Amino acid sequence: MSLDAVLSRIDASLPDATDRLLDLLRIPSISTDPAFKPDCDRAADWLVQDLENLGFTASKRPTPGHPMVVAHCGSDADGPHLLFYGHYDVQPVDPLALWTRDPFDPVVEETAKGPVIRARGSSDDKGQLMTFLEACRAWKAVHGRLPGHLTIFLEGEEESGSPSLIPFMQENAAELRADIALICDTGLFDSTTPAIVTTLRGLLGEEITLRGPDKDLHSGMYGGAAINPIRVLARIIAGLHDATGRITVPGFYDGVTELPDVLRAQWQSLSFDHTRFLGDVGLSVPAGEQDRTPLEMLWSRPTCEVNGIWGGYTGDGFKTVLPSEAHAKISFRLVGSQDPHAIRTAFRAYVQSQLPADCAVEFHGHGASPAGQMQIDHPAFEQARHALTDEWGKTAAYVGCGGSIPIAGYFKTYLGMDALLIGFGRDDDQIHSPNEKYAMESFHKGIRSWARVLARLTA
Amino acid sequence: MSLDAVLSRIDASLPDATDRLLDLLRIPSISTDPAFKPDCDRAADWLVQDLENLGFTASKRPTPGHPMVVAHCGSDADGPHLLFYGHYDVQPVDPLALWTRDPFDPVVEETAKGPVIRARGSSDDKGQLMTFLEACRAWKAVHGRLPGHLTIFLEGEEESGSPSLIPFMQENAAELRADIALICDTGLFDSTTPAIVTTLRGLLGEEITLRGPDKDLHSGMYGGAAINPIRVLARIIAGLHDATGRITVPGFYDGVTELPDVLRAQWQSLSFDHTRFLGDVGLSVPAGEQDRTPLEMLWSRPTCEVNGIWGGYTGDGFKTVLPSEAHAKISFRLVGSQDPHAIRTAFRAYVQSQLPADCAVEFHGHGASPAGQMQIDHPAFEQARHALTDEWGKTAAYVGCGGSIPIAGYFKTYLGMDALLIGFGRDDDQIHSPNEKYAMESFHKGIRSWARVLARLTA
Repeated sequence: MSLDAVLSRIDASLPDATDRLLDLLRIPSISTDPAFKPDCDRAADWLVQDLENLGFTASKRPTPGHPMVVAHCGSDADGPHLLFYGHYDVQPVDPLALWTRDPFDPVVEETAKGPVIRARGSSDDKGQLMTFLEACRAWKAVHGRLPGHLTIFLEGEEESGSPSLIPFMQENAAELRADIALICDTGLFDSTTPAIVTTLRGLLGEEITLRGPDKDLHSGMYGGAAINPIRVLARIIAGLHDATGRITVPGFYDGVTELPDVLRAQWQSLSFDHTRFLGDVGLSVPAGEQDRTPLEMLWSRPTCEVNGIWGGYTGDGFKTVLPSEAHAKISFRLVGSQDPHAIRTAFRAYVQSQLPADCAVEFHGHGASPAGQMQIDHPAFEQARHALTDEWGKTAAYVGCGGSIPIAGYFKTYLGMDALLIGFGRDDDQIHSPNEKYAMESFHKGIRSWARVLARLTA
Repeated sequence: MSLDAVLSRIDASLPDATDRLLDLLRIPSISTDPAFKPDCDRAADWLVQDLENLGFTASKRPTPGHPMVVAHCGSDADGPHLLFYGHYDVQPVDPLALWTRDPFDPVVEETAKGPVIRARGSSDDKGQLMTFLEACRAWKAVHGRLPGHLTIFLEGEEESGSPSLIPFMQENAAELRADIALICDTGLFDSTTPAIVTTLRGLLGEEITLRGPDKDLHSGMYGGAAINPIRVLARIIAGLHDATGRITVPGFYDGVTELPDVLRAQWQSLSFDHTRFLGDVGLSVPAGEQDRTPLEMLWSRPTCEVNGIWGGYTGDGFKTVLPSEAHAKISFRLVGSQDPHAIRTAFRAYVQSQLPADCAVEFHGHGASPAGQMQIDHPAFEQARHALTDEWGKTAAYVGCGGSIPIAGYFKTYLGMDALLIGFGRDDDQIHSPNEKYAMESFHKGIRSWARVLARLTA
């Protein structure tokens, strides 16, 4: 009965909840770009204020990078201690020219698939983290108090490698340790099927700078005789995959295991629409390892991608320069028990081995996290699954996740705490891309879903 | 006797000549970047004014791009009709951070190798074109009139593919046709040995854009399954050369002939210092075709270079984007009778043949000019060689040029006019690079050299 009242309250207050989210989305909290540091700080302040308004004891906690937001309510007497995690920082917005509107001037747009909230961070992760806060708000409005014993833990460096996260967790372990962590940074299986993530890929980021001549040269004066670092870089990148799509870095596949038959059968039962998955982004043919389905590739296979490349003259017109430097940002998604540090070492050795005379390399690491495997026998998993199934009218799927949410592994490693990953994003949310959006239905049913999960976990 | 007076006048007026050059160098006439169009116009105006001051009948002539400057003096009664060509536009200045000072705030700097004029365009080509104008100025001061029958033809699009040049030459053929063209856009053989260029490499520029997904994607959501255009581009670039450094585009070497023994012997007699040539730019090993010396590579072998590459996220930090597009600017230097249009077609076919499913390419051509062979049996060549030998005290060398100065071929093709390429740049002038400079000795002895050449050709 009281859950129904909370759900009704959520329905009635959706316009107010949307306004609050739009307000948060107006803050350009791009964590990777130092120019936006004051904005990250402002987003943290906004959340502290909102949590205080909600009745939490909230504080902004400094780090060497962007601040953490930590808030508490209740005590052990109120039932299991739940920690909720989300992140308030967002990805950069370039290429800005491809946005249909200012990424930080959010709006509710009507689309063929229903209304959406359009802005950078709407889906990743401000919209998602606000689903939990709004569920708490409705709960309090109905019950006069927040639901049980909660800790809220919001990060501002998730999109830039979380450099402060582990030290902060270690320094504040007693304060942050709970019975289970709830993480809202993932997606639905499809627009009508809720999902709980059981595996996450790890992530290793590397930036390489190749140097040849000690200055930019004229390709007429030196072309042919002088080493061109762009050509060397292209050959190194081309050599990272063989003709079958396998990654060539020695030892890369150590720790990659084949999918258990039971999981393969379950994934097949999900009837994932590979054609539509690729068609949604203008593609028709899976491009990766030849003997894998896209779902297998995304959920259970490691990858190596080039996320950025630059060198020489990149402006309008033409300049016959033979450049001194070339650069690339390269990332690996990891699975199973692949060791990111061993792979970093092997990758760097591979690059070194490919360098011709007169070419030097400089490496810059950008984070390293192993893959994660959730504890689905933890009783909270089945409780949450029932709650989601109640809300969506379809059995919640246990799914893999192609992305990397290292926080789940950190909670286990540093706080001994299992994590339950529930999110409401859709595949076409264009997170990390221009025109990011969050479906209004994701926001609305996301809030309702958390109310149901909280009701079950605190019962 | 009168030549001595002209040379003395040049020596005495060097400070004034330098001031005039610095004034011209202050105009940022970067032709490839539309933002600098007004500055190109301003440089043309400056030259028209200076030529009028000198006693030429000068005019700025509009084109669809940047204007031409054309000036005349004398008539057929005054002896052979000489046309002088130079260009007033300059290369872009990026990477700006590597300049030790504002590229358009020129200065005379003392260096270990003597004083230099430091600025973008000081050597390529404003300093060089002013050597001729200053020679005319001294001549007039001594003789009371300009030297003979001259046409001055200054272009403002040389660094951006000269799109207006051929139409302008065709429309104004009668006005521009002379007995021989003098071109000042090349270098000395070494800092003490003057040179006349007998061969020029051709140039073909191509820009390619590869497109995969129809939007930027998240590498966690799509990495592995979706095609990555940066990876495709890297493979295409890596495939342009084989393991021996030869270019793989089918038919590319059609029209490339081996060096005649007599030329090979002459080049060997020049005692080119390969070690110092590479050492000057921080290199030690020739990087091109395995069985060629650097001098052969630069003067007689074709090349393929990547002048620019970009795609994905190139800013600070890391962004796990799987980009929709990747781009490269690629140029070929051509020799012998290589056909730039046939090579453009073959290059595009090669790229097309390398495209995987779901990857499209767009080509943008940036100029195409064949290699050039000068008519060294034209009597002006020996006259000029003697004049240069008189000035420098060393026999002027007949040399090849790794760069591409298509104007020489155009003069022959469109005006039936041979060209004599004499210039005073040094290998370490860093043209097209940060910190471009022109040795004060190049400027001073360049002016004197032209006075001597004019005296011989108009005798």
